Amino acid sequence: MNARPIGVFDSGLGGLTVVNEIKKALPYEDIIYLGDTARVPYGTRSKEVVKKFSLEDAIFLITRKVKCLVIACNTSSALGASEVRKISPVPVFDAISPTVKKVATLSLRKTGVIGTRGTIGSHAYRDAIKKLNAKSKIIELACPLLVPAIEEGETSGQLIRALIRKYLTPLKKEKIDSLILACTHYPIIKKEIKRFMGQGVALIDPAEEIAASLSLYLEEKNLLAPENPKAKRIYFVTDLTSRFIGVAEMFLGERISGSIKKVSL
Amino acid sequence: MNARPIGVFDSGLGGLTVVNEIKKALPYEDIIYLGDTARVPYGTRSKEVVKKFSLEDAIFLITRKVKCLVIACNTSSALGASEVRKISPVPVFDAISPTVKKVATLSLRKTGVIGTRGTIGSHAYRDAIKKLNAKSKIIELACPLLVPAIEEGETSGQLIRALIRKYLTPLKKEKIDSLILACTHYPIIKKEIKRFMGQGVALIDPAEEIAASLSLYLEEKNLLAPENPKAKRIYFVTDLTSRFIGVAEMFLGERISGSIKKVSL
Repeated sequence: MNARPIGVFDSGLGGLTVVNEIKKALPYEDIIYLGDTARVPYGTRSKEVVKKFSLEDAIFLITRKVKCLVIACNTSSALGASEVRKISPVPVFDAISPTVKKVATLSLRKTGVIGTRGTIGSHAYRDAIKKLNAKSKIIELACPLLVPAIEEGETSGQLIRALIRKYLTPLKKEKIDSLILACTHYPIIKKEIKRFMGQGVALIDPAEEIAASLSLYLEEKNLLAPENPKAKRIYFVTDLTSRFIGVAEMFLGERISGSIKKVSL
Repeated sequence: MNARPIGVFDSGLGGLTVVNEIKKALPYEDIIYLGDTARVPYGTRSKEVVKKFSLEDAIFLITRKVKCLVIACNTSSALGASEVRKISPVPVFDAISPTVKKVATLSLRKTGVIGTRGTIGSHAYRDAIKKLNAKSKIIELACPLLVPAIEEGETSGQLIRALIRKYLTPLKKEKIDSLILACTHYPIIKKEIKRFMGQGVALIDPAEEIAASLSLYLEEKNLLAPENPKAKRIYFVTDLTSRFIGVAEMFLGERISGSIKKVSL
């Protein structure tokens, strides 16, 4: 069991920011990643469709005998995690649970949550935080153009700044003290978000919280992989173009071309 | 045969701009529309995936006994039309053929083509124009952020102007005399494109050319529907959210809520 890989799925390539954090926390673990690039993005779609796609992604990884499943995509975590848990024979880690637990440990007055329409419309973050602390003030905001802009490489400069100003001005006015980056793409523009929101606002990245909780779980359950400096990472996608490889490398921060394979679900 | 509906498919809702033009040219025709909103956009995907999705869309309409098929989506027209023609028992109208014929009738010095990455990367417009007039100068340009911006309702104002300036400045410098709006979404921002490019540049809208060639064909083949002021238009989508209804109404320019149905392909 210990030698089995960790399975990570995402609507597309943004989930590679989660793989990055898992690699940092758990360098010896094999990882199998699935990005549903033929049907990305999930963030604009209905709950029903996101559930269906998430289940198909999960089944692909389960049949590859992973020791646990990570839902990197916040939209899938918000709309599909409970369905995935129903069918999964292995533990399922989503983006929301560990992030919300982290938020509960901080004594926060007012927390902002930004994400896709799907994530924000589900109120999954708000509801989970309220369960742990009913008095929390949560302000949720969908930022639908950030994902396509980041995928087009607009990670600094005028355009991304205009979008950040457009979306985040209401949150700045509300004087939030922390902001959950509830979409895998947003860590890529962390610097620009920080620049706009100011040093006083703590940015919370679910990717880091997923990696920390996964790490703790594997340790507690004695499921860590044996030390292995040649840990394998295999990347599957449902569609592959040369541009996708470039985007993947932006998210992963390293070359990927040899280890990325196209599959049909 | 005459009473059978015209089938129109698109990657999503942008194809409703084509339905608009068909309704104007052929007010008595029944229309069945399919928008693949569960997998939109096609413009960023590989040729292989666009072919597969286009075939699935076409088969859905063919089984509903349409008298002809219209591929409203420029990306599907560029990457999937030849496959669709192989399996279709009825004539197939794509966005490229009639547009290119129109361009050939104008004595143009330099033509610009703007579209998705898929459409532009295929060089389908350039190659088809060159076949009719080898001396034509064609400049192609992908504008990937225009579609998500338009879908978010950014059809006038600062943001769309910044994107138009960013993308179209090279075409303006080239002093083109006409510009093909090779994506169903672009007619929505025609005014802003005209404003930037100037009155001297003719904007060519494939939706109008599709409607004109379809109209001519049905007339020549004696396939026009009998006069019927209550022509039926049925809209199918593969995913439906309240936002999709709003976007559909933006493209169609009229209320749609009662006549839109969700289907699985």
